[in-house]
Amino acid sequence: MPIALKPIGVVRTDAQDIPRHWSVSDLEGTLVINDEFAAGLSDIEAGQRLVVIFAFDRSPRFSVEFLRQESGEDGVERGVFSLCSPIRPNPIGMSILLVLAVEGCRIHVRGIDMFEGTPILDLKPHVEIPY
Amino acid sequence: MPIALKPIGVVRTDAQDIPRHWSVSDLEGTLVINDEFAAGLSDIEAGQRLVVIFAFDRSPRFSVEFLRQESGEDGVERGVFSLCSPIRPNPIGMSILLVLAVEGCRIHVRGIDMFEGTPILDLKPHVEIPY
Repeated sequence: MPIALKPIGVVRTDAQDIPRHWSVSDLEGTLVINDEFAAGLSDIEAGQRLVVIFAFDRSPRFSVEFLRQESGEDGVERGVFSLCSPIRPNPIGMSILLVLAVEGCRIHVRGIDMFEGTPILDLKPHVEIPY
Repeated sequence: MPIALKPIGVVRTDAQDIPRHWSVSDLEGTLVINDEFAAGLSDIEAGQRLVVIFAFDRSPRFSVEFLRQESGEDGVERGVFSLCSPIRPNPIGMSILLVLAVEGCRIHVRGIDMFEGTPILDLKPHVEIPY
């Protein structure tokens, strides 16, 4: 049975050149969350890292030819589940961004690696690996 | 427009008591990935951490009363996007698990915090925050 998700907001950025991965991005932008979720944003604070789950809404449809792909980082071919490629069986992305400021339902962040207009599906606190 | 996802596999565990979060779990179990994705699993190796995106398939439907919830960790009420609660606007979970062994489409892991039968949506490599 398919699982149906609805965006909770959208990524806003003026940039045309989007870095390939949040871990190498200094790009700043804004996560604009729908007003209905405002109360859920309390406790998000400047200086913290935020896990952003989003939809790769502009990726080609996945097919078996994409089970192995060349890495955008080093050009080596790997299995798709060992890559952060936007072409995946389920088009879900995850980025860990630095919160710069929160103004109502607008979260200003650094580390953007999503295109303008990318649908946001979830925000989670970043939890360090304890071991 | 809703985004429709299909499970790529399922979580298998014998345990009845499931820890509340992967960061405090020593529970071992198995990620059983559908055969059609076998080639995508190459390069996943024992000893690495794996980001597992999954569906909270047994959570109550989200409503405004869940925008703020008590933390399972310390009992303090927070906004849902600052919690790892399974009751979320989109029922998506994320756990970072330690890979113990890979046998074909079966990935043995430690750190399970999902119920038996949980649908798996994606696997990603764990990338450290570089700053």
